[in-house]
Amino acid sequence: MSLYDASVPQLVKMLGNMERWLDKAAEHAAAKKFDVDTLLAARLAPDQYALVRQIQAACDAAKFAGARLAGKEAPVHPDTETTVAQLRARIQSVIAFLGTLTPADFDGAARRPVTLSFMPGMVIDGTDYLNELAIPNFYFHATTAYAILRHNGVNVGKSDFIGGMKLRPV
Amino acid sequence: MSLYDASVPQLVKMLGNMERWLDKAAEHAAAKKFDVDTLLAARLAPDQYALVRQIQAACDAAKFAGARLAGKEAPVHPDTETTVAQLRARIQSVIAFLGTLTPADFDGAARRPVTLSFMPGMVIDGTDYLNELAIPNFYFHATTAYAILRHNGVNVGKSDFIGGMKLRPV
Repeated sequence: MSLYDASVPQLVKMLGNMERWLDKAAEHAAAKKFDVDTLLAARLAPDQYALVRQIQAACDAAKFAGARLAGKEAPVHPDTETTVAQLRARIQSVIAFLGTLTPADFDGAARRPVTLSFMPGMVIDGTDYLNELAIPNFYFHATTAYAILRHNGVNVGKSDFIGGMKLRPV
Repeated sequence: MSLYDASVPQLVKMLGNMERWLDKAAEHAAAKKFDVDTLLAARLAPDQYALVRQIQAACDAAKFAGARLAGKEAPVHPDTETTVAQLRARIQSVIAFLGTLTPADFDGAARRPVTLSFMPGMVIDGTDYLNELAIPNFYFHATTAYAILRHNGVNVGKSDFIGGMKLRPV
């Protein structure tokens, strides 16, 4: 399995799934007659990121996974979103960036030394970065965003989290 | 990257991390003088799995990932746990099972047709199963278990979720 196959297509799909959770959040807000943007401040614990930051962090985890493994610069996002519409634009921006990466960009990614801004003086090989940080961190923030919506009554279910799969008849 | 490298070591590590979240739950319960097993019924939404079922589901996601990709039978767990001690035994049982799997068991796993009990008549290739279902589903339940603990005041943080990484000096 190439590191491209283990990352980009699935991250793009999950970011698309996340947009559908926001669709369901908007439906819930409309039915209950509240401003959907109110949900951006919702959180599960007072010292944990609110929904807006969970989605920003999931977007960052996805873009950095692609950028670091491909050896490319990631686009900059200043974390200024205050509305669901702006979060959607952020998600779409990351999907678009990941769409610029090709399988060939990932040649040599498995052994590429990846540097992390919060770990100065250290590196981690591409494969370990993907398995030990990029994927867990992405799903951590994606699932927490989903859990905040679920906790607030949004009608999301497991199939909205997993999305479509490449099943075929036996 | 082999499918073994993309699954077994990281699943084993995450299951170990999960045991440490339970350590912190026990510390919190002791400090607050409540029975730690009370947390097993905690949930984030009335129609979502409680903590006990989230941990059972994470364990199942991990054991089935290993079993299906290796073409082995997974151990059976009847979901009868009612205490943190029993959940720890379940986690350790899955870690032990994963420890019996070898990289050679995963030869051909990428194209192995995987069947899913909830999708009769369909199969999914091993690579797609890993990326599209096994990994997301594992992290979904692991993160939700973590979020339930966090929501209930347990002192878990991101480093408890991610755990150690194979960093090395530049």
